Amino acid sequence: MKNEFLAKFIQPASTKIILLILDGLGGLPQTPGGLTELETAYTPHLDQLASQSSLGLTIPVIHGITNGSGPGHLAIFGYDPIEHEIGRGALEALGVDFDLRPNDVAARGNFCTVDENGVLIDRRAGRIPTAQSRELVARLNEIRIDGVEFFLETVKEHRLAFVMRGEGLSPAISDSDPQKNGVRPYQVHALKPEAERSAEVVNQFIEASSRILHAEKIANMITLRGYDCLPVLTPYSEKFSLKAAAIAINGMYKGVARLAGMEVLEVEGLTLADELRTLETHWNDFDFFYVHVKQTDICGELGDFDGKVRVIEEVDSFIPRMLALQPDVFIVAGDHSTPAVMKAHSWHPVPVLIHSKFVRPDNINTFGERACQHGSLGVLPATQIMPIALANAGRIAKYGG
Amino acid sequence: MKNEFLAKFIQPASTKIILLILDGLGGLPQTPGGLTELETAYTPHLDQLASQSSLGLTIPVIHGITNGSGPGHLAIFGYDPIEHEIGRGALEALGVDFDLRPNDVAARGNFCTVDENGVLIDRRAGRIPTAQSRELVARLNEIRIDGVEFFLETVKEHRLAFVMRGEGLSPAISDSDPQKNGVRPYQVHALKPEAERSAEVVNQFIEASSRILHAEKIANMITLRGYDCLPVLTPYSEKFSLKAAAIAINGMYKGVARLAGMEVLEVEGLTLADELRTLETHWNDFDFFYVHVKQTDICGELGDFDGKVRVIEEVDSFIPRMLALQPDVFIVAGDHSTPAVMKAHSWHPVPVLIHSKFVRPDNINTFGERACQHGSLGVLPATQIMPIALANAGRIAKYGG
Repeated sequence: MKNEFLAKFIQPASTKIILLILDGLGGLPQTPGGLTELETAYTPHLDQLASQSSLGLTIPVIHGITNGSGPGHLAIFGYDPIEHEIGRGALEALGVDFDLRPNDVAARGNFCTVDENGVLIDRRAGRIPTAQSRELVARLNEIRIDGVEFFLETVKEHRLAFVMRGEGLSPAISDSDPQKNGVRPYQVHALKPEAERSAEVVNQFIEASSRILHAEKIANMITLRGYDCLPVLTPYSEKFSLKAAAIAINGMYKGVARLAGMEVLEVEGLTLADELRTLETHWNDFDFFYVHVKQTDICGELGDFDGKVRVIEEVDSFIPRMLALQPDVFIVAGDHSTPAVMKAHSWHPVPVLIHSKFVRPDNINTFGERACQHGSLGVLPATQIMPIALANAGRIAKYGG
Repeated sequence: MKNEFLAKFIQPASTKIILLILDGLGGLPQTPGGLTELETAYTPHLDQLASQSSLGLTIPVIHGITNGSGPGHLAIFGYDPIEHEIGRGALEALGVDFDLRPNDVAARGNFCTVDENGVLIDRRAGRIPTAQSRELVARLNEIRIDGVEFFLETVKEHRLAFVMRGEGLSPAISDSDPQKNGVRPYQVHALKPEAERSAEVVNQFIEASSRILHAEKIANMITLRGYDCLPVLTPYSEKFSLKAAAIAINGMYKGVARLAGMEVLEVEGLTLADELRTLETHWNDFDFFYVHVKQTDICGELGDFDGKVRVIEEVDSFIPRMLALQPDVFIVAGDHSTPAVMKAHSWHPVPVLIHSKFVRPDNINTFGERACQHGSLGVLPATQIMPIALANAGRIAKYGG
């Protein structure tokens, strides 16, 4: 209801917004009484910016929920991450950084072992080594059926992400995975009339896989389950009257940005400097730029506290270049916390900073978790960041007299 | 749902609450790094009060929404300002400070120009000067039809607020304004059976207007559109078990208070001192007093930073007199921000202070935007102020054993 309400007041403007997302930005102290990664980092430019900004802490989903980057990005983009759930199959694909497109049908897959009668004797193919799985996946990716493209990705060991792309495909088909040994994998059938062809295509794909894997001792079959497509979201052009671009290196983030109707810009190279050059090149072409930094999260996941600190310091060094573009609104945020001491995503609120010439500065001169908790944005749902940014960009009309 | 839940625990008491609303209270620094209007003002009494209060920042509607005084007041009165939307016609009337009553039917109107065949040739009557519009409006206000009273107010140039008052009127009637030139204004018809008479009355009014304006060259006709009534709210007596009074100078605020079932007290004069005298005179007669200060908003809208500072200082000088009445709960709040530097309402959170002998003081010794951001109320929806005030007034019973 809040979304529908806000929609009535969106107005166009010539202002520009940068949303810089440091993946897994939030952290924890490395030692009791110590500082977090962000607090440890030497960030003179972010600190200077903080002194002219509104600060707060975002809750990506709800208190206590540890979220992936998918829901975390949807939330900070302004979409309710509970209402717009990304299904299991799509998550598996996004999770291995696959650049999933709207209408792609994604599923979770397993390598498995069947006996000479086709009966499952190991649903997980002895948890084959990941390297071996990658070799087999490369062979399965050769399969082509009736204009449908298939993309398989090894997740880990026997686990696969399966994606099919083509006209008129539907995820309304049944699982082939019986979820138990001692029976044959099921034939796939359509759960809705429009899914007949998809069921047939998947059955053909599984058969073809079986032929290719026939000589394997262990991983001689695959099973598939949990098909879905990406959720359909109101694009930014319509939702916020923004012509939006996404600058990201990794496929998953391109996929999520595309969901929001953002144009995914080509980045030549893999570094933050390459992303910055892309931003500068396209500055005149869009109203809104989402810029994604992946390395904060990677270091967090690896437990590399010092590495995460260094990435934040590198990001800090690029802040003047972004500000030199004179965005009307500049947001620094994260999609979730990834404390290095936890080596994992977490539920902790995420620091956020909104800068514009119309913010009421919070008189806080540093950007960090504990500093942000004193900010005037308070602890707020991540979905509220875009409305505040739009207000600062002069893109929300007045409600009532 | 929250409202229904709260309602179960409302209990009567003999305590008294003052809600002092400084219209457009929130502000912005005049210069980068500077102080806001409220922070600039010398407010020894408010600062002293703050040291014994709970502080916070209210969001009138939702983050990012710039709201008018109508929704801002509904929110701080404890009504959801999205659920209880005030329609366009009612807004136009409230916007020119018309003292709109429940069951009044309000609409937006235009002076327009029609040719000798009655065909619209200028929907806006050449945007006639406001002064001329006022003269014509005075003549139209003479019209009387079948016990229905009409109140027209010039909004600006050709724009009018139209209100009709009488028994059994309904807003379920069609627009006369075709929203384009080259056609005749439409006859008004009933959209529901109970609106037959209203449609007839409006058609008669438009005909009568046409006769009165016949000799005019430019503004020789009027059109009407967007009829509505004020929303119907559960009155304070029922919602909060409060006998409530409103003390305001301007019509719009009387109108909104009346929506909440408050008795609008007569103020002899136009100053804050006059309002204070009204408060003192009626102190024994009510449980709850809403006191409205308009000048803060007026100075903000005019871009008069120093003027807004002076008004706040004047309000401060009256605080001891209000406290001398020994209210059990004393609230200082705003309905929205009106930063002088923006010369307009804005979306910025609004300082709030709740004082009673039962608050847990925040150890903050000043009342200002940045001080309030550190308060124990946090950044909260404005609708939550009244429940907290009622609790402090001993007017909410315990939930559960």
